[in-house]
Amino acid sequence: MTPYSIGPYSIGVDLGGTNLRVAAIDLAGKVLSRISIPATYEAGPQRVVSDIVTTVQQVRGQVGHDGLTGVGIGVPGYIDMQAGIIIGSANLFGFQNFPIRDEMQRHLNTVIILENDANAAALGEMWMGAGRSVKDMILLTLGTGIGGGIIIDGKVLHGSQGMAGEFGHMTVFPDGNPCGCGNYGCLEKHASATAIASMGRMMHFQHEVSSAADVFALAKAGNKRAEMVFEAMGRALGIALANLMNVFNFSLYVLSGGPLPAWDFFAPSMFMEIKRRSFTYERTNPRVEPALLGADAGLYGAAYLPLQNLPPAEIQG
Amino acid sequence: MTPYSIGPYSIGVDLGGTNLRVAAIDLAGKVLSRISIPATYEAGPQRVVSDIVTTVQQVRGQVGHDGLTGVGIGVPGYIDMQAGIIIGSANLFGFQNFPIRDEMQRHLNTVIILENDANAAALGEMWMGAGRSVKDMILLTLGTGIGGGIIIDGKVLHGSQGMAGEFGHMTVFPDGNPCGCGNYGCLEKHASATAIASMGRMMHFQHEVSSAADVFALAKAGNKRAEMVFEAMGRALGIALANLMNVFNFSLYVLSGGPLPAWDFFAPSMFMEIKRRSFTYERTNPRVEPALLGADAGLYGAAYLPLQNLPPAEIQG
Repeated sequence: MTPYSIGPYSIGVDLGGTNLRVAAIDLAGKVLSRISIPATYEAGPQRVVSDIVTTVQQVRGQVGHDGLTGVGIGVPGYIDMQAGIIIGSANLFGFQNFPIRDEMQRHLNTVIILENDANAAALGEMWMGAGRSVKDMILLTLGTGIGGGIIIDGKVLHGSQGMAGEFGHMTVFPDGNPCGCGNYGCLEKHASATAIASMGRMMHFQHEVSSAADVFALAKAGNKRAEMVFEAMGRALGIALANLMNVFNFSLYVLSGGPLPAWDFFAPSMFMEIKRRSFTYERTNPRVEPALLGADAGLYGAAYLPLQNLPPAEIQG
Repeated sequence: MTPYSIGPYSIGVDLGGTNLRVAAIDLAGKVLSRISIPATYEAGPQRVVSDIVTTVQQVRGQVGHDGLTGVGIGVPGYIDMQAGIIIGSANLFGFQNFPIRDEMQRHLNTVIILENDANAAALGEMWMGAGRSVKDMILLTLGTGIGGGIIIDGKVLHGSQGMAGEFGHMTVFPDGNPCGCGNYGCLEKHASATAIASMGRMMHFQHEVSSAADVFALAKAGNKRAEMVFEAMGRALGIALANLMNVFNFSLYVLSGGPLPAWDFFAPSMFMEIKRRSFTYERTNPRVEPALLGADAGLYGAAYLPLQNLPPAEIQG
């Protein structure tokens, strides 16, 4: 490896659905080293901790032991940050109440900070992505569901139990589609990738439609009903964004996830609803923009966790 | 006046609709002196500043000049906090771009801090009212419209232009009542005191109904249609609160304003909607409670502005 002479850096860990990804990133956002290995979450916490520790040590070995400020981990699930424990996770089997932070600290002998993966992604976009110019922003991630994070004055808003930012379950149509959470008209039943695929199946029974990408392909080919799906999706998204603008008055709202390439199909109805429903938007003209870091947002955000309280320092190249 | 031997205190000013109220309050929340005079906003900014200055000096004279940390002012309108200027106000005629802070500072020779009146009320409830046990809370004020404030870690969330907390214009029914802001189904068109009176007029044409209090009187007398008005109002409020809970995950949401005495009529449908629409509520059990300070919330909040950055100190009785 290139021998770096470096300043402070940290290591971010992203426990993604298919891959465990680890990257060393310096204060300027430069990726010094990165490794991705297949995830083995079904093998249980001891194996996952072992995989993380081994990979972090490899990355650390490549960059050097001096200057490491800590390791940040983006976890897909609810965590108790104070205790360093994963409370619940749909993907991480057997991790309930597992003291992942202390286990890792024992092996790695450095600061370990946990964060929810959606919050980490929001933090990453604020640090090195679409939000580089701001300290207050909201990220909405459109995927199977809709999640995201709220950044206020450069820090994640957690709420009283770390459950802030459940944008997917904001009610946009009080009598809308039923949701597994017990509600009707949740944003994610009208604007997630899953919702787009579902609406597509309902609208296009003469075509094979199994994903949001299929609906997007149909829309690009000029299919009017596929365009209507994105128009409906944009409307729901616009109602939610207008509500967030009226509540937060932030200058930036960032969207990420699979449906983003279909921006031109959903953005017109989204902005139409925003303009109609938020006089704050009309008066203050906040930005709504696509995320810039793609699947790396959570990795950057995780790496930023140990760095965010350091004083700015110059990085030697 | 009683000769006080006091520690740090501050003076809060509330520019209410009918009265200009000024109170000296100490760090423990004890009101040391208070004066209320009729408001003369139509006489223009110079007269209003003169009234404020005179009244503040009277209060200060009663308490003593030592220990005054500053004066906080709750302003009904949009303000530029950095510049100390009122940008716009429906009640304060001729104040547009008037440098009220510098004008007052010139006469009073102490720290002057401006805050929006709804934010000041939220701060007051956090400091000495329903939110005394918390540092994160939301206040919703049900009046002619619906306003309020967001307190995070003990401080007001302002947003990028001081317009955060416009809860009245959250969309609760996308195809609901038209609002002057250009939207349909704004919360304040379904749950403010004005909306209750308006729904009452529509539901009870055989009675004289001119205010929310009239509808409340009818409901108390057993009128089923008046009860239905509060049930509809509670539903709208519940949808908005569920959204706020999903977004903020705070442990406390406080309601204030004229319709609060009708709690027993609107609370059942409000909590029904909250439970259905916020799994965060079901999991974390946040409180929804009436405000405790009534019309004094803004006065307490204004007084708290110069105090909030002081280190806690013991007050001599």
